[in-house]
Amino acid sequence: MHVTIIGGGGFIGRKTAQSLAEKGSLRGQTIQSLTLADIAAPDTLDAPFAVHTTACDITDRASVDQLITTDTDVIFHFAAVVSSHAEEDFEVGMKVNLDGTLNILERCRMLGTCPVVVFTSSLAVFGGEVPDPITDHTIPNPQTSYGMQKAIGELLLNDYSRKGYVDGRGFRLPTISVRPGKPNRAASSFMSSIIREPLNGEPAICPVDEDQEHFYLSPRRCVENLIKGAELNAPDLGQQRCMTLPGQRLSIRQMIDALTAVAGPKPAKLIKWEAQPDIAAIVRGWRFDYRFDKALALGLKADTSFEDNVRYYMEDDLPNT
Amino acid sequence: MHVTIIGGGGFIGRKTAQSLAEKGSLRGQTIQSLTLADIAAPDTLDAPFAVHTTACDITDRASVDQLITTDTDVIFHFAAVVSSHAEEDFEVGMKVNLDGTLNILERCRMLGTCPVVVFTSSLAVFGGEVPDPITDHTIPNPQTSYGMQKAIGELLLNDYSRKGYVDGRGFRLPTISVRPGKPNRAASSFMSSIIREPLNGEPAICPVDEDQEHFYLSPRRCVENLIKGAELNAPDLGQQRCMTLPGQRLSIRQMIDALTAVAGPKPAKLIKWEAQPDIAAIVRGWRFDYRFDKALALGLKADTSFEDNVRYYMEDDLPNT
Repeated sequence: MHVTIIGGGGFIGRKTAQSLAEKGSLRGQTIQSLTLADIAAPDTLDAPFAVHTTACDITDRASVDQLITTDTDVIFHFAAVVSSHAEEDFEVGMKVNLDGTLNILERCRMLGTCPVVVFTSSLAVFGGEVPDPITDHTIPNPQTSYGMQKAIGELLLNDYSRKGYVDGRGFRLPTISVRPGKPNRAASSFMSSIIREPLNGEPAICPVDEDQEHFYLSPRRCVENLIKGAELNAPDLGQQRCMTLPGQRLSIRQMIDALTAVAGPKPAKLIKWEAQPDIAAIVRGWRFDYRFDKALALGLKADTSFEDNVRYYMEDDLPNT
Repeated sequence: MHVTIIGGGGFIGRKTAQSLAEKGSLRGQTIQSLTLADIAAPDTLDAPFAVHTTACDITDRASVDQLITTDTDVIFHFAAVVSSHAEEDFEVGMKVNLDGTLNILERCRMLGTCPVVVFTSSLAVFGGEVPDPITDHTIPNPQTSYGMQKAIGELLLNDYSRKGYVDGRGFRLPTISVRPGKPNRAASSFMSSIIREPLNGEPAICPVDEDQEHFYLSPRRCVENLIKGAELNAPDLGQQRCMTLPGQRLSIRQMIDALTAVAGPKPAKLIKWEAQPDIAAIVRGWRFDYRFDKALALGLKADTSFEDNVRYYMEDDLPNT
């Protein structure tokens, strides 16, 4: 069993690699090697199998051809430029998120080995005119170029699977919280930092009302789902290989109450409420009323309560002090 | 007003050109020129404006760049390889239906003139796991590569429109009947030939049961809708530029009854009932329970009864004898 993670330098890629290192096997077979690829070669990690790290530019077909070989059994394709970047630079988004995904699928088609491909899609495929709730049968009507490119990735993954070129499975990720690391420019950044920074002993700003709802999944449960996703049997996936991952619909207030329940009253006092109308307007445009029946039927899981999300951050990611 | 029809050699392209020639204007402006492009230069036609005919290979970006210029105000993009061809030859389907559409949209983006682009999509985008009825909010879950490529075309058209690169509008065509011309290898071919051949005084074979239902639109009404579609105001299209065209759900029996009502009892006697289980199985897999609320709200129309479809064929397409 040879596994390749494309986007292996990102935090979901790294956590997937760590989880595979702990597990040692995938789809019932011992892992012989893991290749971590990203635009710059990622750091390696300790594992009971060989770990290769390599730079791969998925927009360059030759680079993809070198990465994916007849030995490759399972590909986790997490590489993408994010929403704000794809919106600012249309060409970069098309190159990485569309051409890059096509390069990976075309390489697999040429090899004729039908590897398992796990693709991370996004709830950004949804929006526009569709009514709530958003189900497995709702049309993607994306309102960002990133969402358009992910929705195209889903269609490609489905058809390449139907034709037997890959054995694909695509998962639309809820907003991941508590995300480790630093705040970034994403409008959703605060959805992790209002929990993460206070647990790190640092102040954080909440730019929206406490009753603002959204749809969340912890990094730990996300990675569990992606690995389970790789292990699903193709016939169980039916005619639609892509689905929304289970998540929890929560208000900011519920998240902060969970923080306090797990870590006591001190961290929440580090949250400053500073209305940022531009951020609030973006977030109000997002959907949070999702159904995920297909993923549940296949055994994929949401977190049980946001208290778990807080605990997972403390156990997995809290910096040593 | 300069209009270009890509796929101008096909029967929908030709009928659109003829209709524009009769009308003389589009979007409230007098037409100065019409360019008919296809993989081979189409025949010209009589019109009160200049008609140019040219060969254009949409898979070749340079060929597209030559066709579409800063003068181009409205593009009808009808060019595609059909379902069975795209299924047999995956690469040709991807090149024409995906890369070709991208070449057209990218050329428009580079020009910066935001032309109106009318794109013909297909009900082949639907299928798979989605429940009936299929509405404007149903996810495309195509079960052919052609359907996948058309669904991607819809996503691209929407996003290029959202970004202001084109002013797109996409229409999923019902099965067109009565289609002029000869039978072809499409599984749906008999849905026109059981009406057309008897009206031409020739025998025809019906390979399915008389209670088989399907979803139809006449060529005349189809072209009216596509031209109205070009004339819609962008703000009225909202956040979803693509929609199912109105059609009629009919059984084979209802179609034959309409044939008899219009043309008397003789033509129906030329229909031979020869069960073809392979054709019947394909057709049984097709959906026919569609809703088309958005198109209706925008003033697009189905035929009133299949008797009209029969009459339109006799008026527009019956060969002179």
